[in-house]
Amino acid sequence: MSPQARHEHLVDAALELYQRLPPEDVAVEDVTGAADVSRALFYRYFPNIEALHVAALGTVAEELVSRVALPAGGSPAEQLAGAVDIFLDVASQHGRAYVALLRSGSVISTGETDALVDDVRDHIVTLLVERAGAPEPTPLQLMTLRGWVAVVEGSTLTWLRDGDSGLARDVLRDWLVAQLFGLLEVTARHDPAAAV
Amino acid sequence: MSPQARHEHLVDAALELYQRLPPEDVAVEDVTGAADVSRALFYRYFPNIEALHVAALGTVAEELVSRVALPAGGSPAEQLAGAVDIFLDVASQHGRAYVALLRSGSVISTGETDALVDDVRDHIVTLLVERAGAPEPTPLQLMTLRGWVAVVEGSTLTWLRDGDSGLARDVLRDWLVAQLFGLLEVTARHDPAAAV
Repeated sequence: MSPQARHEHLVDAALELYQRLPPEDVAVEDVTGAADVSRALFYRYFPNIEALHVAALGTVAEELVSRVALPAGGSPAEQLAGAVDIFLDVASQHGRAYVALLRSGSVISTGETDALVDDVRDHIVTLLVERAGAPEPTPLQLMTLRGWVAVVEGSTLTWLRDGDSGLARDVLRDWLVAQLFGLLEVTARHDPAAAV
Repeated sequence: MSPQARHEHLVDAALELYQRLPPEDVAVEDVTGAADVSRALFYRYFPNIEALHVAALGTVAEELVSRVALPAGGSPAEQLAGAVDIFLDVASQHGRAYVALLRSGSVISTGETDALVDDVRDHIVTLLVERAGAPEPTPLQLMTLRGWVAVVEGSTLTWLRDGDSGLARDVLRDWLVAQLFGLLEVTARHDPAAAV
């Protein structure tokens, strides 16, 4: 295997292990066992287990950034529903990793994982701003979009944790879509920069 | 001074220093200088500077929990505006400490500061649930209240960072109040548990 393939192999082993265990419970031995490599090899690629966790959570953040998009056709609500669907797909596919990425109290939370979360947030806000087609969002509009992203994150965490006992996925998606339009409506009535 | 008074004196010195410096830039020497005590004394009270930061940020969280309340009189919107006003007062009075408390990437962010932030969030959600007077909030109502608290936190951070160049305080307050009512309206239309 090339060094890059080996690196990916270890990251994939970690993502695989997260299907059973929260990242903070995955140790070097679990990864070397799952990837069938020696500890010495592991440490040639990563200085410690935290570095592997950051790399693995990074692939989840990258997947969110690369896949979450607004489809071209349909009404604004349909486009937004499409984007939220992809977001929920990726988040639920990597449930424990997504929780670890967002949970600041996690033992593996670092400045690096915070930067990954910010990338995802910025990506979504940029998508929405671009699609709105307005020349430049006002400060309050930007606050609104960021606030909605915070609502998406928090409710996705709750949804992932509660599982089937909680909210149906479609209800969550439609609620999130409606909330963004609601937030923007209120903002339109309060925005000093838009009331010119 | 009694041990408790000495402890408070060091915490007060830290809070005082935060008026000029972000907590992560405040070192033991700054505190011992400001409090006019020896390093040896400092270390009898705190094992390290992080422990003092956690204690000082804890007093900010405690102040939010003890002071943020819904006034008894007036319309629901007036009551909520009163609570948001107190929240913004406390947050702006301890601007840098509030930012440090919320910013998970901060060097002094720990499981302990996350627990402090959760206390503040739980306090606000509990206030709102109690005042609503409904027997028990539905999962989606709870998600809505938590989402609104996330909007309050995020927009308060932006407001504190942008200072006078940003949003006027009254606009922010009235916008936050209107957003909670807007969020709850949308939730009422989407709530499977309320549509019985």
